[in-house]
Amino acid sequence: MEVFLLKLPLHGSNPSYLYQSLKLSMPEKTIDFSVNINPYGPPPIIQEKWSSFFQSMIDYPDPHCLKLKELISNREGVNQNQIFIGNGASELIYIIANALLREKKVLIVEPTFSEYKKACETFSCHVSSFLLSSEKNWELHAEDLISLIEKVDAIFICNPNNPTGVFYPKEELERIIEEAKQQNTYVVIDEAFYDFSTQPISMARYVKDYNNLIILRSMTKMFAIAGIRLGYALCHESLIEKLKVFQPEWSVNAVAQQIGVLCLQDKKHVQKTQSLVAEERKRVFSYLDSLHFHVTSSQINFYLLSERNNQHLLELMKFLLQHGIVPRHTYNFDPLNGRYLRLAIKTKDENNRLIEVLEKWRKTCSYS
Amino acid sequence: MEVFLLKLPLHGSNPSYLYQSLKLSMPEKTIDFSVNINPYGPPPIIQEKWSSFFQSMIDYPDPHCLKLKELISNREGVNQNQIFIGNGASELIYIIANALLREKKVLIVEPTFSEYKKACETFSCHVSSFLLSSEKNWELHAEDLISLIEKVDAIFICNPNNPTGVFYPKEELERIIEEAKQQNTYVVIDEAFYDFSTQPISMARYVKDYNNLIILRSMTKMFAIAGIRLGYALCHESLIEKLKVFQPEWSVNAVAQQIGVLCLQDKKHVQKTQSLVAEERKRVFSYLDSLHFHVTSSQINFYLLSERNNQHLLELMKFLLQHGIVPRHTYNFDPLNGRYLRLAIKTKDENNRLIEVLEKWRKTCSYS
Repeated sequence: MEVFLLKLPLHGSNPSYLYQSLKLSMPEKTIDFSVNINPYGPPPIIQEKWSSFFQSMIDYPDPHCLKLKELISNREGVNQNQIFIGNGASELIYIIANALLREKKVLIVEPTFSEYKKACETFSCHVSSFLLSSEKNWELHAEDLISLIEKVDAIFICNPNNPTGVFYPKEELERIIEEAKQQNTYVVIDEAFYDFSTQPISMARYVKDYNNLIILRSMTKMFAIAGIRLGYALCHESLIEKLKVFQPEWSVNAVAQQIGVLCLQDKKHVQKTQSLVAEERKRVFSYLDSLHFHVTSSQINFYLLSERNNQHLLELMKFLLQHGIVPRHTYNFDPLNGRYLRLAIKTKDENNRLIEVLEKWRKTCSYS
Repeated sequence: MEVFLLKLPLHGSNPSYLYQSLKLSMPEKTIDFSVNINPYGPPPIIQEKWSSFFQSMIDYPDPHCLKLKELISNREGVNQNQIFIGNGASELIYIIANALLREKKVLIVEPTFSEYKKACETFSCHVSSFLLSSEKNWELHAEDLISLIEKVDAIFICNPNNPTGVFYPKEELERIIEEAKQQNTYVVIDEAFYDFSTQPISMARYVKDYNNLIILRSMTKMFAIAGIRLGYALCHESLIEKLKVFQPEWSVNAVAQQIGVLCLQDKKHVQKTQSLVAEERKRVFSYLDSLHFHVTSSQINFYLLSERNNQHLLELMKFLLQHGIVPRHTYNFDPLNGRYLRLAIKTKDENNRLIEVLEKWRKTCSYS
């Protein structure tokens, strides 16, 4: 592997690190398509109430996050003792690996969010991959996976999947969870982006009957509060007991708790976002098709872009960066390894700028 | 142990939990002497700039906390690769136990902050206590401890100590660190409250020469930002490498990073606080003496209060709570077990109210 690839940032966002690693100078104005947060930003009420959060920042946060748990409990139809709140979903991934999976065998459905593997390796798990393929449109079919379940202690599935944006159907997940229960295998389903779809699929209501199931939810993407960190897990109360001893006191900051309560009450913002994302995705995909790019069958707010001959896209990535468009590289998404770029669906104007730059690329510098 | 004692909150702050566990109704107005944060609150610039932090909350935080590290590096005279920033010092305690001390032997100098023990037990450490005593004014003498060092893999020392407020002299700590280095024993020194003293003692500059030393610093107490979480560790770069793999990405939120940078630049606020605390402590101690209470030789912003005959203080605790004064119980500070109350130094008016209520107690309900 070339040296610069080792220095690429592990995740999207914070674009200056990507420019630095590629030794490119960063234009004054950039649009960050590498980060998958709500193009509308946070619900308006968060900015309206922002000054009132100052006071909550002074004293210690409620270590039990009671108000937030009450709301989540109502919203999800689970009991409060089936909710575990974290300093972002990334903290929860580490706690799951630490508490339940140390030195165990873990299967990860890939390509996917790299934190599952990183967390599991931190706790000496034996990690293997179940690789999805472009030939099957990156879909997950239970029958391909089912025989592997007895061989592992846990499976990580991201649904809808990051970076493809593809949703796996409920029936396939049901089969996996059921077989996993028989085999005493945990199933962790990360639903970080499920609510960006106009037809969200969630397995949350299964946690009552399946004590091997953990649902992960992020609040940082839909509500555009990634900077303040907030996520939660839904699972059987017996699992919560095992997880919570691994969480430091006051892990969930007080401002995030206050913001979380307001976000969960704002259903309009979610609906508005779902509509925008669906509309813009359709529009952008139609342009990209006319430019002879291939895209994944995303139902949410990001997708993978590739050339139809599936060649490496390093030059395109550099071209975009030089024109102020920041894509997410895929060098640490096995098996994508640079032949795809992940791009977010953003506002209409921002998406137009992306299309403009891609048109320019086609006209002036296209590979073939 | 009586049942209610098992339900007492583990820490100060969030007083409603203390009232609940004692089945007392909470007065409309309370003054929280159970929390040890700056009586002046945050530096004024934090409130002035608060609205500007909104934008930083939307996107992901810098996972490397670069700006904050630059400032800490200048302030402490250590290299940036000797700094590890956490979601509050409590996260760092868990990471230290997780990364370095799993299943190892740990000695804790007690009575002290209960999170060291909780974190170490989470990671299956064999925890033993070195008990300080009231007869020796809760001081730490290296010679009493030195023979135990070879028997353990790590020692936790809080300096100045929570809950006594007593500072241990540099010479005693030097002897301990040096002997620990010979014995391959880690020494964790938590300096969470060191800057509340007009004559702060810190062992920070020793991290360059001692790769067995970890200094913990909280920013939540001096700068009254406990709700937003921020702390850091200073230690040899070889230790940082071991610790950082255990920290989830984006653990330190973006608002905390921005606030931290401003706090570290405001030296006046620290000096002003040190003066207030010194003055008020002197004044309060003089009143308490006249009321025949005993106090520890605190040099910082909290102290232990006890009766001269060292009796249990449950009734006094209830009396204070009923009068809107919230003390910190000591049932989970071995060997204090309820014969002491920890009280913060607060503003002049708040301290006066405490004295008023204690006077009332002496007049109407005193034990003997």
